[in-house]
Amino acid sequence: MKIVVDVMGGDKAPQEIIQGCLLARDEYNVDLVLVGRQNEIKDELNKSTNNFNKIDIINAENVITNNDKAAMAIRRKKDSSLVKALNAVKNNEGDAVVSAGSTGAILSGGLFILGRIQGIERPALAPVMPTMRDFSLLIDAGANVDCKPEFLYQFATMGSIYMERVLNIKSPSVGLVNIGTEEGKGNKLVIDTYKLLKDSNLNFYGNLECRDIPKGLVDIIVCDGFVGNTILKLTEGLVKEVMTGLKDAITSSLKSKVGGLLIKSSLSNFKSRFDYKEYGGAPLLGVKAPVIKAHGTSDRVAVKNAIRQAKLYIENDVNRLIEESVNKEVRM
Amino acid sequence: MKIVVDVMGGDKAPQEIIQGCLLARDEYNVDLVLVGRQNEIKDELNKSTNNFNKIDIINAENVITNNDKAAMAIRRKKDSSLVKALNAVKNNEGDAVVSAGSTGAILSGGLFILGRIQGIERPALAPVMPTMRDFSLLIDAGANVDCKPEFLYQFATMGSIYMERVLNIKSPSVGLVNIGTEEGKGNKLVIDTYKLLKDSNLNFYGNLECRDIPKGLVDIIVCDGFVGNTILKLTEGLVKEVMTGLKDAITSSLKSKVGGLLIKSSLSNFKSRFDYKEYGGAPLLGVKAPVIKAHGTSDRVAVKNAIRQAKLYIENDVNRLIEESVNKEVRM
Repeated sequence: MKIVVDVMGGDKAPQEIIQGCLLARDEYNVDLVLVGRQNEIKDELNKSTNNFNKIDIINAENVITNNDKAAMAIRRKKDSSLVKALNAVKNNEGDAVVSAGSTGAILSGGLFILGRIQGIERPALAPVMPTMRDFSLLIDAGANVDCKPEFLYQFATMGSIYMERVLNIKSPSVGLVNIGTEEGKGNKLVIDTYKLLKDSNLNFYGNLECRDIPKGLVDIIVCDGFVGNTILKLTEGLVKEVMTGLKDAITSSLKSKVGGLLIKSSLSNFKSRFDYKEYGGAPLLGVKAPVIKAHGTSDRVAVKNAIRQAKLYIENDVNRLIEESVNKEVRM
Repeated sequence: MKIVVDVMGGDKAPQEIIQGCLLARDEYNVDLVLVGRQNEIKDELNKSTNNFNKIDIINAENVITNNDKAAMAIRRKKDSSLVKALNAVKNNEGDAVVSAGSTGAILSGGLFILGRIQGIERPALAPVMPTMRDFSLLIDAGANVDCKPEFLYQFATMGSIYMERVLNIKSPSVGLVNIGTEEGKGNKLVIDTYKLLKDSNLNFYGNLECRDIPKGLVDIIVCDGFVGNTILKLTEGLVKEVMTGLKDAITSSLKSKVGGLLIKSSLSNFKSRFDYKEYGGAPLLGVKAPVIKAHGTSDRVAVKNAIRQAKLYIENDVNRLIEESVNKEVRM
C-alpha cells in the first residue's frame, strides 16, 4: 500500500505535512510518496531523520492555493503538487491521496482526474463534526450545491459504508437535515429524499432539526452541499467566536482572571472537543480512489491521522463496497 | 393605535404574556386587545392591577399548539386565540398582532387571514440574531423553503426597510448567504439573486460565508427559509450545548468550581448576549398588517419588547414603505 501526500497544501505546508508523513510511516508502517518541491522536501526530511525507508518523492514545482480558481487551476497547473499527486494515483503509482490544500481544487481534481465510481451520480465531501456526544459525519459538506434526491440517497449510502468501515460505527444512523421532524416537512428536495431513505436498507433516523445537530443524535448528517457547508462553517465560526468571547469575558477583570486560571485545565479539555484537527480529514466519497482532504490548519498530528484514515479506507475496501452497493440496489 | 395580543401562545402563557401586556401599556401608553380565555385573563389581571384602562379582551376558548398541523389548525380552530387575534386586525379592530405561539400557525395565519401586501411574492420571517458585534436580521428564517431569486430580492428589500425604520440602523448592509465570497459561487438560486442585489439600490455587501455570520459583518442576512432555519436553529442549539458543556466543565472539580464563582458575573454578561429573549420578536414581513412572532420562551420583558416593536412598526409606516418599494421598482 502506497499513500500519496500533497505536501505543499495547507497553512503549515510543507514542514508540518512532511513531519506528519514521518510520524505516519513510523507508526503505521505505510509506504509514502511525497509530492512537492523536491529541495524543500529533502531539506525538511534531513532536519529530522536519516531514515528514508518507505519514502518516495515526486517533484512538483507549482502549488495550487486558495486564491486559484479551482477548476481552472486543475486544468492549467499540471506541475502542481495536487495535480501530480492525483495523477500518480490515477497511474497506479499509489493507492490514495492526502492533501490539506484548497478544498475546491481537491473536489475538482478528484472529479476530473480520478473520475466517479461507476453508478455514483456525484462525489461528496464528508468531514467529521464534533458533537457533545462524540462526532457525526456530515455529507455533503460543499461539493454539490444543487442536488437531486438520488444524490442525497447516495450520500447516505456512501457515508454509511465509510462510517462503518473506517470509523468503526456499526449500523450508523442517518439523519436527514430538515426544518422540522415530521415526515412531509421541508423543501421538495428533502421531502422526496425522505421517501428514498425510508424505503432503504440504511439505518434511517428520520428528519433531523439543526438545533439537535450539536447534541449528536445521529451518526450521519445528510444534506445538500449548500446546507452542509452552512452547517460546517457556521459551527466552526460560532465555536471560534464563542471561545474568543469567553476568553475576553474571563480576562475582563482581575477577579475573573484568577477564576480563569482555576478553570483552565477543565476548560482546555472542553475546548479540545471542538478542535477539528483532532478528527483527521474528510474523505471525498464517490471518486475512483480514496482522497482525504485534511483540514487547512493541519499540523503533523492531523496529517498523521489523515494518512491513517487513507490506510483504513484502502484496507477496508470502501470503494469496492460503494460500487457494489450502488449497482446492486436500483431504487428509482 | 391598538395592538392585539394572543395571550395563549408561548411556553409561559397566559401569565407572562398578560404581565408583559401590562408592562407595555404602562411604559408605551398603547391600547391593547388581549385575546384568550376571558376568565384566565381577568384572573391574571386582577392579581396585579385594578387599572384596566387601555385593555380590551376578546374571548377565545381554544388554543393552537405546536402539536397542531399549522395550516389545518388555522382553518379549523376558528375560536382559537391566534385566529381571533388575526381576524380582529383584519376587521380593523386592531393595528398589529403579537403572538408567542406556534411559528407555523402564525405564518399560515398571517398569509391566509391577513393576506400578502400587493406585489409581495412571499412573506418572510425575520428574527434578530445576536452576533459578537451586535445583532443581525435574518430573513427568511423558515417561512419559504423553496425560493426564487425574486423572493430573496424582496426579502432583502423588506428587511432593509424594517431594519432602518424599526431597528434604527441607517442604510443597513445586506449579505447574501453563500458557500464562498466571490461572485459566481454557490447554487443557482444565490448566483441569480446576487445579480439582482448587485443591481439594486440596497446597501449590498456581497456574499456572506456562514463562518462570518457570528462576527456580525452585515446587518441583514438574506437566504431562503430552509437555509435560514438551519442558521437560526443551529446557532440556538450550538450556543445552548456549548454553555451546558462549559457549565459541566466548570463544575467537574472543586478547583474549577471555585474558579467558576469568580468568573460568574463576567460570564453572565457574556451569556446574556446570546439570550434570544433580549431581542424581542420576529416580524412576519410582507403581510397586510404587522405581525410580530415573539420567541416561544418569552417572559414578560420579551413580550413588552415585542409590543414595542409592533408599535414602532405601525408608527413608522413600514408596510406602506414595503408596498411602495416593491411596486415602484420593477426589476425583472
